[in-house]
Amino acid sequence: MKKSLLAPRSFPSFPFLEGLKFNAITCGIKNNKKLDLMLVVMEKGTSCASLVTNSYTAAAPIKWIKQIRKHGVAKALIVNSGNANAFTGSNGFNNVKLIVKNLSSTLNCNPKEIYIASTGVIGEQLPINKILKSLPILVNSLSEDPKNWKNIADAICTTDTFSKGSIINSEISGKKIKIIGIAKGSGMIAPNMATMLAFIYTDASINSEILHEILKSVVEETFNSITVDSDTSTSDAVCIFATNKIKFSDEIKSAKDPLLVNFIVSLKKLCLDLAKQIVSDGEGANKLIEIKVSGSLSNKKAKTIAMSIANSLLVKTAIAGEDANWGRIIMAIGKSGVKTIQKNISIKIGGINITRNGSVEAGYNEEPVTKHLKGKEILLDIKVGIGKGTAKVWTCDLTKEYIDINAGYRS
Amino acid sequence: MKKSLLAPRSFPSFPFLEGLKFNAITCGIKNNKKLDLMLVVMEKGTSCASLVTNSYTAAAPIKWIKQIRKHGVAKALIVNSGNANAFTGSNGFNNVKLIVKNLSSTLNCNPKEIYIASTGVIGEQLPINKILKSLPILVNSLSEDPKNWKNIADAICTTDTFSKGSIINSEISGKKIKIIGIAKGSGMIAPNMATMLAFIYTDASINSEILHEILKSVVEETFNSITVDSDTSTSDAVCIFATNKIKFSDEIKSAKDPLLVNFIVSLKKLCLDLAKQIVSDGEGANKLIEIKVSGSLSNKKAKTIAMSIANSLLVKTAIAGEDANWGRIIMAIGKSGVKTIQKNISIKIGGINITRNGSVEAGYNEEPVTKHLKGKEILLDIKVGIGKGTAKVWTCDLTKEYIDINAGYRS
Repeated sequence: MKKSLLAPRSFPSFPFLEGLKFNAITCGIKNNKKLDLMLVVMEKGTSCASLVTNSYTAAAPIKWIKQIRKHGVAKALIVNSGNANAFTGSNGFNNVKLIVKNLSSTLNCNPKEIYIASTGVIGEQLPINKILKSLPILVNSLSEDPKNWKNIADAICTTDTFSKGSIINSEISGKKIKIIGIAKGSGMIAPNMATMLAFIYTDASINSEILHEILKSVVEETFNSITVDSDTSTSDAVCIFATNKIKFSDEIKSAKDPLLVNFIVSLKKLCLDLAKQIVSDGEGANKLIEIKVSGSLSNKKAKTIAMSIANSLLVKTAIAGEDANWGRIIMAIGKSGVKTIQKNISIKIGGINITRNGSVEAGYNEEPVTKHLKGKEILLDIKVGIGKGTAKVWTCDLTKEYIDINAGYRS
Repeated sequence: MKKSLLAPRSFPSFPFLEGLKFNAITCGIKNNKKLDLMLVVMEKGTSCASLVTNSYTAAAPIKWIKQIRKHGVAKALIVNSGNANAFTGSNGFNNVKLIVKNLSSTLNCNPKEIYIASTGVIGEQLPINKILKSLPILVNSLSEDPKNWKNIADAICTTDTFSKGSIINSEISGKKIKIIGIAKGSGMIAPNMATMLAFIYTDASINSEILHEILKSVVEETFNSITVDSDTSTSDAVCIFATNKIKFSDEIKSAKDPLLVNFIVSLKKLCLDLAKQIVSDGEGANKLIEIKVSGSLSNKKAKTIAMSIANSLLVKTAIAGEDANWGRIIMAIGKSGVKTIQKNISIKIGGINITRNGSVEAGYNEEPVTKHLKGKEILLDIKVGIGKGTAKVWTCDLTKEYIDINAGYRS
């Protein structure tokens, strides 16, 4: 698979983050000999929070995370790619428990501290023997070397054309802290509580309840604001782990504590970077589309309109064809189910005003709009003019390559 | 555009239906010199009912139909293709009124008896002078010749690769009656109250209130149960006109009158035939997919699940690729928002059982499923096993040709 035209130039150079050891190996789940199993082991005292897919056909590892996450402490994260362990019945869940049992006994921890995720084909049983046989090798090969993060990110990829990582420095209570994150995702992207897979680490001391609160609000405006194909995965999960290595003299009292303002801004930046990388790797994508909707009665209604546009095949194919076909945006606003008043709707593409008072702007010139559509980053700015609700979502165009990939790949 | 592989062999031979005169001409709205304006004039006393799009950015003619439909009497139906008169502001609505004024004065009727529809590009003003200049020519050329129905059906097409018609004979109160219908639609198909355009005529005597009741229930299971791309048009409308030429000795008291049983069954057959023709002409479609969902808590919930499958790009591309990738059906069931219990879900493709107790059937053999997927008509049968709700919906596969058509065509 050719690397997406929208990929960042390179995987970022991750910093050392105290309290983590990790590695990835090829255990033979994928047929192509690529990395397919990764393990991150955390030092005692790592707090964590996670959000998982709303799918009613959630995969076995998702059920496991739902069972353990209230415990709020993590010792290890193990993720395989090539097989989603989804719709695999009680057998699939038993396989999760076998891996957890093995790892918790090796690492001498509570089974509730083992986080697990799987991504890949739905409906096939995990090759559990391959995984169990690989675990001792993987555990013995762990390292603190930050160069290894690229392998960790590679090992969770499926149809991704590039591995996704992001780093950011921040501060809490005057002390420098780091946040790092990796993610995967390319198709089956319309997250509903979380995206495909994203794992975030920080060295800051923050307890799991507060992490959970922060994660919820940040995910809503980042991973939950992207869509590639409106299909929600059975395996979506985003987890944040805080190794608690950097302690603060001031106590953090809640997610709304002013001490956390910078941290939350930084975390949101990092999540948005990863989310946009996922959209940029949307199957067959040539263009990253940002859709801003303002003037709706609530933020939620603005997001419904934005997602209606973002998921419209006709809007996405028009943009793929670099066709300034704004009528399809009007159609998508109209079908969203959110009441609007036609004469208040105004549409800008690439900053150029197209409509006014419910019809096309007098003297509208399509040329600069067409020019903007030839670029890689497309901006749609919609005002519906009846309230103060706003939302921003991201999607990609829909090209023939999406069909090529998905009429062939078994996911 | 090549004719869809799923098209019926030919346009049906329409019978003579008393009380109608009609014709279609090329008035120059379309660039390709194809028929683009049609008129059907009905004899006095024609009752009618109509359902239109739920879109909040509905086209000007839709607003007009909403204003007049309570009147329940029709004298003429005029439809142009090539321009949707949608998002055209007050100017667009004035153009509707100009056409109505002109026709009602020529035909000497109440303006409320003029039905109008437009389909084509969104956002451009109607070439009103071309239309007004053509009206006298059109009115003078009307004929009762049933051979002309093919032209009428052609004149409402846009990206359609074949014109859509259907006929059925039925009876009410022991008397033979006829129902004929035409439709158009190919993309932007996820009707919400009605499909793109469908116009149905019968010679039976049925008043407009009863027609409306019948139409609502029939449309729900026919035009409202199809989807090509989950995009709802700004111009969807379905109208039924009863010329009242065939009178009955027994009085029809309500839509539930036993006298109407055969009529309703026939009307549903005709609407389903037209609806399936629309899906068969889905842009780029090579396969017609029927999705049956049973065992949900209500019919509505069953339909939500069925539509979630029907609108999943990943399901539609898998079927385009003739890939027995049933995991994507599981995904689409899970994302539908309707609660299900995994272990109760069973999936059949082409009558072959694939899953049992929440995982794949022991000894499942993919070969006959793959063979079924190589055919033109694909059957998905989903049981969710928690109630008695059922639904059936129809869609088509998603191919590269859909992208080709929509990255180019300005609709």
